[in-house]
Amino acid sequence: MTYTTQVKVRFGDVDAAGIVFYPRYFEMLNTAVEDWFSDGLGVSFADLHLVAGVGVPAVRVTSEFAASSVLGETLDVELEVRELGRSSCTIAYQMTCGGAKRLAGELVIVCTDLKKRKAIAWPEAIRDRIDGKTAV
Amino acid sequence: MTYTTQVKVRFGDVDAAGIVFYPRYFEMLNTAVEDWFSDGLGVSFADLHLVAGVGVPAVRVTSEFAASSVLGETLDVELEVRELGRSSCTIAYQMTCGGAKRLAGELVIVCTDLKKRKAIAWPEAIRDRIDGKTAV
Amino acid sequence: MTYTTQVKVRFGDVDAAGIVFYPRYFEMLNTAVEDWFSDGLGVSFADLHLVAGVGVPAVRVTSEFAASSVLGETLDVELEVRELGRSSCTIAYQMTCGGAKRLAGELVIVCTDLKKRKAIAWPEAIRDRIDGKTAV
Amino acid sequence: MTYTTQVKVRFGDVDAAGIVFYPRYFEMLNTAVEDWFSDGLGVSFADLHLVAGVGVPAVRVTSEFAASSVLGETLDVELEVRELGRSSCTIAYQMTCGGAKRLAGELVIVCTDLKKRKAIAWPEAIRDRIDGKTAV
Repeated sequence: MTYTTQVKVRFGDVDAAGIVFYPRYFEMLNTAVEDWFSDGLGVSFADLHLVAGVGVPAVRVTSEFAASSVLGETLDVELEVRELGRSSCTIAYQMTCGGAKRLAGELVIVCTDLKKRKAIAWPEAIRDRIDGKTAV
Repeated sequence: MTYTTQVKVRFGDVDAAGIVFYPRYFEMLNTAVEDWFSDGLGVSFADLHLVAGVGVPAVRVTSEFAASSVLGETLDVELEVRELGRSSCTIAYQMTCGGAKRLAGELVIVCTDLKKRKAIAWPEAIRDRIDGKTAV
Repeated sequence: MTYTTQVKVRFGDVDAAGIVFYPRYFEMLNTAVEDWFSDGLGVSFADLHLVAGVGVPAVRVTSEFAASSVLGETLDVELEVRELGRSSCTIAYQMTCGGAKRLAGELVIVCTDLKKRKAIAWPEAIRDRIDGKTAV
Repeated sequence: MTYTTQVKVRFGDVDAAGIVFYPRYFEMLNTAVEDWFSDGLGVSFADLHLVAGVGVPAVRVTSEFAASSVLGETLDVELEVRELGRSSCTIAYQMTCGGAKRLAGELVIVCTDLKKRKAIAWPEAIRDRIDGKTAV
């Protein structure tokens, strides 16, 4: 499954060098994952976290920064599911601008019961959508 | 060379699940690198960026999140130089709390001329300190 | 002149109490001002800051928080110019959700030469657009 | 009651103009309030929010920005209680650097039951400390 969305580089994202401060890329990545859950998997982060009591914390992330991004640019964020475990999901991501690569890497999230703070199996409805078995 | 510092988990660092939102860890990591430059290498980020016109953007970062951190905790951040290239520096880092592992990974930064936006060789004074040849 | 835009409450905006951490509202407000300059005044923040060397730092801001906002909500941000000085601009703003008031206040920005760090008169083209004399 | 603490301007706090992005000042202010609760009032934000289920959201904030702050500076933050209501607390604050004024304003927080999302009377132990009747 592949999902694409866009994020804009805002004033608060850039540093004294005029380029995106790299921790902000992970906020953009998280925003893309939020959009993916909401638009692609049919469950909003609000419903997931606040109603179902389920979170998807990161357990691993890697990133290669190929070129810097500047204020005002719109980045295309592409997420591609590489592996779907019982409770984990490995997502390859890349951010580009007008086709030019900015950064790419992998993010592994884990479906977690927020009260018990324990990994749990993906709810079937979400799993089927990640797998592409059902449409939103 | 090894450098250790501490960061406190602040209200603005935690998410709706009450634990550190992972992009904030990279801000903490950057703060630790700032402290290292200032206290360990003898050059502040302000002098480096604003006076010398030199930046140290990340070109690669990896992170494994072993356990979550909560509001109010003080994390020990340890940086260890693994490899010093002509213009790059590979830093292994870990954050622990009371000895318990929270996250660990690698960060590669590159010494960069901010005007030309090009990698440059580390200034000798900084290189010697990273190498441990001279004390601050 | 009145300008309206929308911002979405993201995971990184909410705190341990599940509601927007108030400093994030000012980032949203700044994003709205960015959109206003770009869409309403015909000059992007990137061109303004990086090309023209002009900034619009805040010199005063006030905010009354009427009700909290939660993850996933989309806020309507309304900006209304109250007073246009030689170099200042007083903007009344409010953020609402589905018509319900969340916060409101005033923001005063000042047109500034970033190199000299001095207030300067608004460039005529921008002044005329703020005044509504010319369309974008 | 007056409380003072310090915050350092970090790389992630400054914008493309090389000065503190004003929303970051409110994070610094919140950090100072955290320190005040912990060091001055004897209750950490973690215990307050996560154990007692009590929050202190802002209901009003004002700020006058007198001069900009740059990367690496250490700011002195001074909080002074102006008025203590049944559930509110009005705090005058200022941030200075080497005695030079940077910003000043007022912050009103309200003691809130996080579950019921309702204002509640300050717990007596906290009220007495804010009032200066008991030492920490």
